[in-house]
This record gives sequence, structure tokens and C-alpha cells, in this order.
Amino acid sequence: MTIEQTPDFNKPYQNNLVPAIITDVTTGAILMLGYMNEASYALTKSTGETWFWSRERAELWHKGATSGHTQQVVSMTLDCDLDTVLIQVIPNGVACHTGRYSCFFNPVIDNDFRVNT
Amino acid sequence: MTIEQTPDFNKPYQNNLVPAIITDVTTGAILMLGYMNEASYALTKSTGETWFWSRERAELWHKGATSGHTQQVVSMTLDCDLDTVLIQVIPNGVACHTGRYSCFFNPVIDNDFRVNT
Repeated sequence: MTIEQTPDFNKPYQNNLVPAIITDVTTGAILMLGYMNEASYALTKSTGETWFWSRERAELWHKGATSGHTQQVVSMTLDCDLDTVLIQVIPNGVACHTGRYSCFFNPVIDNDFRVNT
Repeated sequence: MTIEQTPDFNKPYQNNLVPAIITDVTTGAILMLGYMNEASYALTKSTGETWFWSRERAELWHKGATSGHTQQVVSMTLDCDLDTVLIQVIPNGVACHTGRYSCFFNPVIDNDFRVNT
């Protein structure tokens, strides 16, 4: 199923980018957040693998092109005001450049009652 | 458990904001993405409810102040380069201004094999 919805890349404060939340479709874990411009968003849709816009290097970035840790796209969903995209993937390896499965590993607060009981 | 890690609000391209991914700790669903400046981040930590920076209104925004749909913070985790925060919450009502549980409801691609089988 494909429904054509388009992100609003021209919205103020977005620098012509939309944040992309990447989750593991199997575990539900949140792996990373990257940014997509119109070209990388289109490449992600057409190739079925994630492409981002590297803000630091100012270039298109095919995730896993060097490491082999590509991300196979399963679903893409836009939010209510079309300025964020949620992408479920099947990860081929780790998401983080530190070698970790997920980029989110620095706890600030952890009051998770499920862990502490 | 509280470990002091601090987001990098002064990083280029961030406009002194960090995106905050909000998830429902019970269901694991991704509810919304908002932006936090240093003040709203500090308020979120100190009050235990989510506060954002409204880019459109250019003001602090206590989620649920008007609607009653506050979000109780369970955990906060920063990513590898300290420019995104992942927050697990117990939502008191819906997250989306449209009345939906989650802001992510506009499908672009849905190849979820778990749904289609």
C-alpha cells in the first residue's frame, strides 16, 4: 500500500529538512534520529533504504554505505503537520557510529517502574 | 537514578533547540516529536511533565496546560551526540491536537509484513 503524502520541507525553522525517527520494526526500539532533505527523502522512498542529509558534511548520506549497516524501510508515516517522518526499518547491523545498537544510550532520568520493581 | 548529562543546545543547525521524541512507556508507541530549548528541558526535568518550545508561537509550552493532556515523564535519554532526547511518558490523554492518540497517522509507505500477512 502506498499513499502519497509529502512532507512540508519549506516550513519555517526546519532549514528545508525533516527529522526522521528510525525504529526497529521487530523490537520497537528507537534507533536514531536523522534529517532528510527532499532528495534524501525521495531516495529513501525509491530505494527502500534510508538516506539522510548530513548537516555537518552538507551531503547526502546513504546509511550503511561505508559500514554495511543499511536500514531496510518497512513503513514511513508523517505526523499531523507533515514536518516529521517516522520510519520503521529492518536494520542490517547497528545504528550508531559508536557500535551500539541504538544511538540512545545516555540516561538523564530513569524512573521506569518496570525496571525498578 | 539520575545521571547528569546535558544536551548540546549550541550546536550548529539546531537553533538552540533539541528535538524530543515522546513515547508511551506502556505501549511503546511514538506519540509526537516536539522541540525543547534549555528552559523547557530544565522544566521537564524539574516538574516531571513535558514542556516544549513552541517555534510558531515563540513561547514555552506546557503540554496539556490547556487540554489537560499532560505527559508524566518516566525516563529521559540523550543520543550519542547529545542533540536529541528520547522521553518515555505516561500520557494523560491524547498527544495530538487533532484528538488522536499519536501525531503519526499519515501513511506514506506501509510494507509491514506483520500487518499484511
